[in-house]
Amino acid sequence: MKIHRTVYFLVILVFIISVFSCSSGSSGGEISYPLPSWNEGETKSAIIHFVEDVTNTNSANFVEIPDRIATFDNDGNLWSEQPMYFQLNFAIDRIKNLAQDHPEWTTKQPFKSVLEDDISTLLSYGHRGLLELVMASHAGISAEEFERIVRDWMSTARHPRFNQPYNKMIYQPMLELLYYLRNNDFKTFIVSGGGIEFIRVWGEEAYGIPKDQVVGSSIKTELAFVDGKHVVMRLPEMDFIDDKAGKPLGINKHIGRRPVFASGNSDGDLEMLQYTDDGEGASFKLFLHHTDSSREWAYDRDSHIGKLDKGLDEAKEKGWTVIDMKEDWKVIYPFELEKELKTSSF
Amino acid sequence: MKIHRTVYFLVILVFIISVFSCSSGSSGGEISYPLPSWNEGETKSAIIHFVEDVTNTNSANFVEIPDRIATFDNDGNLWSEQPMYFQLNFAIDRIKNLAQDHPEWTTKQPFKSVLEDDISTLLSYGHRGLLELVMASHAGISAEEFERIVRDWMSTARHPRFNQPYNKMIYQPMLELLYYLRNNDFKTFIVSGGGIEFIRVWGEEAYGIPKDQVVGSSIKTELAFVDGKHVVMRLPEMDFIDDKAGKPLGINKHIGRRPVFASGNSDGDLEMLQYTDDGEGASFKLFLHHTDSSREWAYDRDSHIGKLDKGLDEAKEKGWTVIDMKEDWKVIYPFELEKELKTSSF
Repeated sequence: MKIHRTVYFLVILVFIISVFSCSSGSSGGEISYPLPSWNEGETKSAIIHFVEDVTNTNSANFVEIPDRIATFDNDGNLWSEQPMYFQLNFAIDRIKNLAQDHPEWTTKQPFKSVLEDDISTLLSYGHRGLLELVMASHAGISAEEFERIVRDWMSTARHPRFNQPYNKMIYQPMLELLYYLRNNDFKTFIVSGGGIEFIRVWGEEAYGIPKDQVVGSSIKTELAFVDGKHVVMRLPEMDFIDDKAGKPLGINKHIGRRPVFASGNSDGDLEMLQYTDDGEGASFKLFLHHTDSSREWAYDRDSHIGKLDKGLDEAKEKGWTVIDMKEDWKVIYPFELEKELKTSSF
Repeated sequence: MKIHRTVYFLVILVFIISVFSCSSGSSGGEISYPLPSWNEGETKSAIIHFVEDVTNTNSANFVEIPDRIATFDNDGNLWSEQPMYFQLNFAIDRIKNLAQDHPEWTTKQPFKSVLEDDISTLLSYGHRGLLELVMASHAGISAEEFERIVRDWMSTARHPRFNQPYNKMIYQPMLELLYYLRNNDFKTFIVSGGGIEFIRVWGEEAYGIPKDQVVGSSIKTELAFVDGKHVVMRLPEMDFIDDKAGKPLGINKHIGRRPVFASGNSDGDLEMLQYTDDGEGASFKLFLHHTDSSREWAYDRDSHIGKLDKGLDEAKEKGWTVIDMKEDWKVIYPFELEKELKTSSF
């Protein structure tokens, strides 16, 4: 049973560190539960107030358990997305591995720029060029083979800045938020513009979110009979793009209910938050604002990746909650906690 | 909390009746748990043996909890499908309700035959004609409006033979099987050729299966802004047909894992069972054979609805389990139990 193991481990870790911090009188903000890695303040209070309100049977805002649907964007919201979407790193590495069987790629864009590590030229091909890369690198194999390849990549690839496996670049405060919501009988879903099958491979262990609770972009598939077995083959054609107006459609298709809690970090999540806001009854809309250039990255209105512009204005206008990463979060990544534990005299 | 209420109620009901039967010495087969409405025999034994085997940590066939995925066809498998698919009754009633706004339907097929109650002509238009009906009757409204319309229909429409609401025409032994599997940490899913949003409206209460665990056929949707709110609008265009080879694709899209337990009743489910059979490790493949012309219906190889032909042969060849409805089931519908309780001297 690997589901939840990571989350439980981390919650216990935060508890151990908090006990240690108190007993040694070391510095650092006061730690309180739930959401121990969140600083006290308006953001944390707003989350806790909402959850306590909608789970209180005496409240006018009480929400029945089956309706407690919480949806989370992934890139830049549950894990980092800089200097480029992590799935694009996977696609690039895969293109390089496949290159020997595709001599034509040495002269054909956007593949040529990948093989020459010319990322700025690659990005100049825009959305269409990136989709072409993803198609070529994600199709032509069975669902099971794809899973194995992603798993292998995740165990070997490292983030250029932090030298960590990408599935360790997840946000500790968001893990605690997912855990807190589930502990209050919310069903937590990922609703990502990223590839549904890419996220499913590692999301279960990283976030405690089962594969069937992942909504994402997808390519077309067909049933094939290979080596005496029926397999789902991945085809080089887009099926569904789960971004912007696609997010409410993906939610309707996979979940069948409007969320009452929606969390995102970019204008690509705006329609999901609007859709949540337009439901009957109480709901919570949360944007993560990347404000921490030293511990993570700081970007918003002018960013090519994870642009948050209209969303910031609409959040202010409608009174939605905006996380200020630098101010609201005690730690960013779980590995910071692990390091703290290792280097302490505890 | 309406989820599971019906199932719990019925399990308790079976228990009460079994106690009553024993104390009064009335006739009827011996009742034993689990699966009290199933007669003792090879079918029941095979199910229980499989579940005990794959949940035993000491067994070579042990299956981890996240992999305990069980998929059930709906029409003719969890509820009846005769004399025609129940969703078609919904579509016909809806066409009649909409007819006053569509004077052209009085001369245009297949609508004309619906308005004239000429079912044999209607059926002569085949798959394409039926799809046209479903499009016209299911589209042009928001997801929430559609849900309300299905809910209203379900509360008023009655089955022509049994004079029961359609959502009471569900199989008591299958409710017990769903309950038994969930009790052993299986996650149960509906994988139906029927409409995903049609089933979601009533399936949660009927089967204890949450909306997000329903896989089915779907029409395209778009995000619209109506009366100041974002809604998912239903479009008159097919998106996905979750039947035959579509079932493994629907499973891969919505669940992301091969099932280890698959249950169906027609050749439309054959690929789902083959796909399950081809997975790594132990799996259970189950066909329901409609053999009871007095309590339900008897049909298989030559039926227009729920044809079970190739499936019967393949089940025999590969040693899959086939339910003989007449022999294996003590009762068919929950309302039989309710009647028994009402008319008893208990």
